[in-house]
Amino acid sequence: MAASFANGAMNRSGKVEPLPEEFDPKEIVSPMALESDAGAVEECVETRREIVLGRNVHTMCYTIKEPEVDDDVTGEREGYMASVLARYRKSLIERTKHHLGYPYNLDFEYGALSQLQHFSINNLGDPFIESNYGVHSRQFEVGVLDWFARLWELEKNEYWGYITNCGTEGNLHGILVGREVFPEGILYASRESHYSIYKAARMYRMECVKVGTLISGEIDCADFERKLLLNKEKPAIVNVNIGTTVKGAVDDLDMVIETLEKSGFRGRFYIHCDGALFGLMMPFVKRAPKVTFKKPIDSVSVSGHKFVGCPMPCGVQITRLKNINALSSNVEYLASRDATIMGSRNGHAPIFLWYTLNRKGYRGFQKEVQKCLRNAHYLKDRLIEAGISAMLNELSSTVVLERPKDEEFVRRWQLACEGNIAHVVVMPNVTIDKLDDFLNELVQWRTRWYGDGVGEPPCIAADIGPDNCCCAEHKKS
Amino acid sequence: MAASFANGAMNRSGKVEPLPEEFDPKEIVSPMALESDAGAVEECVETRREIVLGRNVHTMCYTIKEPEVDDDVTGEREGYMASVLARYRKSLIERTKHHLGYPYNLDFEYGALSQLQHFSINNLGDPFIESNYGVHSRQFEVGVLDWFARLWELEKNEYWGYITNCGTEGNLHGILVGREVFPEGILYASRESHYSIYKAARMYRMECVKVGTLISGEIDCADFERKLLLNKEKPAIVNVNIGTTVKGAVDDLDMVIETLEKSGFRGRFYIHCDGALFGLMMPFVKRAPKVTFKKPIDSVSVSGHKFVGCPMPCGVQITRLKNINALSSNVEYLASRDATIMGSRNGHAPIFLWYTLNRKGYRGFQKEVQKCLRNAHYLKDRLIEAGISAMLNELSSTVVLERPKDEEFVRRWQLACEGNIAHVVVMPNVTIDKLDDFLNELVQWRTRWYGDGVGEPPCIAADIGPDNCCCAEHKKS
Repeated sequence: MAASFANGAMNRSGKVEPLPEEFDPKEIVSPMALESDAGAVEECVETRREIVLGRNVHTMCYTIKEPEVDDDVTGEREGYMASVLARYRKSLIERTKHHLGYPYNLDFEYGALSQLQHFSINNLGDPFIESNYGVHSRQFEVGVLDWFARLWELEKNEYWGYITNCGTEGNLHGILVGREVFPEGILYASRESHYSIYKAARMYRMECVKVGTLISGEIDCADFERKLLLNKEKPAIVNVNIGTTVKGAVDDLDMVIETLEKSGFRGRFYIHCDGALFGLMMPFVKRAPKVTFKKPIDSVSVSGHKFVGCPMPCGVQITRLKNINALSSNVEYLASRDATIMGSRNGHAPIFLWYTLNRKGYRGFQKEVQKCLRNAHYLKDRLIEAGISAMLNELSSTVVLERPKDEEFVRRWQLACEGNIAHVVVMPNVTIDKLDDFLNELVQWRTRWYGDGVGEPPCIAADIGPDNCCCAEHKKS
Repeated sequence: MAASFANGAMNRSGKVEPLPEEFDPKEIVSPMALESDAGAVEECVETRREIVLGRNVHTMCYTIKEPEVDDDVTGEREGYMASVLARYRKSLIERTKHHLGYPYNLDFEYGALSQLQHFSINNLGDPFIESNYGVHSRQFEVGVLDWFARLWELEKNEYWGYITNCGTEGNLHGILVGREVFPEGILYASRESHYSIYKAARMYRMECVKVGTLISGEIDCADFERKLLLNKEKPAIVNVNIGTTVKGAVDDLDMVIETLEKSGFRGRFYIHCDGALFGLMMPFVKRAPKVTFKKPIDSVSVSGHKFVGCPMPCGVQITRLKNINALSSNVEYLASRDATIMGSRNGHAPIFLWYTLNRKGYRGFQKEVQKCLRNAHYLKDRLIEAGISAMLNELSSTVVLERPKDEEFVRRWQLACEGNIAHVVVMPNVTIDKLDDFLNELVQWRTRWYGDGVGEPPCIAADIGPDNCCCAEHKKS
């Protein structure tokens, strides 16, 4: 079974190169799977590391066992399930503790909401149009939306939005609205944009132009201008990164707008701001350029499970009401009174967000943002002191560093990697103590990797600039 | 504020006709919103009922209050939040009790899983490709997927799938894969298909042909054939309803396949089965035609929060691995190793599904399906006895009936309506007692509506056929 499965997968799938994305590093697919005799847990034997798209690999899974007729009597089934769950919980605790690579705030306390878990809460359709289904949480959702609209300075009667399932849904929605407003528009996005932007272009059959980036990860407006001038006849739909995934680089919104206007696109552009992580942090950073609807932007999305922290992925999407009208005037399009992408929507997520926003408020977030930036600087300084290549963008809490040589270390700390670099995203749950643990371990492991002339740390000047690189060639003595 | 808000909305939005959909009836948008002085809860004054797409109406919302500096001391904020939640919980209990119109099984018990609520569980990307983010539940997800693949008779090494956020995501995925397999394909769907199918066509810029239906709600294969013959040169991507939303009609899969083959489409069609509700019920009904991958179908989606029951919307999408390979061979498309639509995915939903599938097993579901069908027949028979027009399709637990005259009654029982008809979906949590309560109330209210020659019940023969209609004209004496 295991053998034929592996062969089957081999024949079926072409191997493809990994690409920059959300971004789980480019590893850890185990082409062999063994099925245990018990049939309950399948574990994998890891033989090689490579990515094969579309391969169906059962690395490890808790098989569903058909209950025996006498299970109720013997309690065997209940026992099996309880033991699986207990084991799983233990691993979650450990994995939550050793986590640095993903921009998720794992520090939340929603005990007061556990009373709601046994309701099937569903906000189907538009948040602003009542449904006959009564078990919803629109009253919380709209409260959360109002809060974000205020944060980004759009009047209550001028915005439309909803709570999405994740950052990707926000991007898919923003780009779709852009396309509906400008059906012939070309999508422009920097090459360090989140992969969902390119996914959208393909899904929606849109022309798409990739724009270069600076070493910081920001969009290169000189390249942007060149590309705009090549396509002057078609309107521009632009994705602006309020924090790129890998380097936490914030695109210069003002310069993007200026570039569009001086290239003759005034009144013929749509700007979507992908604020996955920093969309919520930037408003609380004093020197940060403002993301605001007082500028000619059209939609902003942000993730709810990132800076806010939430047990499940979710996001907030805010757009100008007039854009939605453009969209919904086309009734055939919607075939419904629903301008969301999904029909049924998780009604618990809005309550989680509402709860945290209420508890922390603007001031609470401000404090947390400051703490994150402070801790990120601490980490970056300590890395450089230790002779480890590292970069930290000014408005960011994402510390980019040399990719640790050993994948075991990467996995242990759940770092996200791309090519020769890795990053640590300093979120509110990442304390100085945790960073010290990480640093000490890293220094220790590096002695093993690079001590006694065994080898040399990689040069990552191409990724983070020569000034930040501590390789043999670039290190300042 | 309230007035200018309403005016603003008026100017901005064009009024549009409601259309058949997910389907909240065509009512209840209150164009006026009053903001209470306290600023904490906004409630609406209902003045008219109409749908205006894209209007941003704050019917009622729990505003987020910025904490006062001394809130921590006075406990005022905590008190406010606790009181909101307590009130909300009470309303959820009441609304859960009086619920008949949506196909959600509200009867579940996940107490054993509440220990997991404080983890940020996220299955980012492909379920079969490990991520470095360790707080995931892929091991449960793959177990659930295996179970469904077995149910629909597709080998482990031949399927690909994932747990979606809802039925709509499954449909969006199925249609997208179809389009990638046949880029020039035309989408065919019966006019009683879920609106997400038409949404997909528009999103993906696909040509789309609407096919007529029989009185039962099933696709009309004679019309299908006519339309196929008009478009012989392009491949066909077909949506087959395994239970339509409104009438619970099951399209005849075998006849659809036969129609495709005799019209010369052999090897040039892709079939997506939208099994939102019945996809999970049909396998347990003895006489039901089988949904199986042994037939030339390509993808099946089903909702997890419907028959199974789950606190939040979710769904299961299963497709042939070879289709995903077709898709993923186009690397530029994915720009990632991710063939899902969403990037981050709720990791709690798979655990809920895993838990219920393990507890109930095939036999458990079989019993529940039988109970639902029995209770649906009971309801239909009692309605007819009482002289109320009603229809029940053979393989369905969706009872279609005359739309109650009073919207208060409709809202009280959370019925889903369309035109002159309403429906009750008999789910496992709908007992005979609840149906009796409903019937008795309906009969009572009808006396008020139609007694003493005040008025007459509507004729709904056009919707459910003359045999099922009990209006003055069609009633058998």
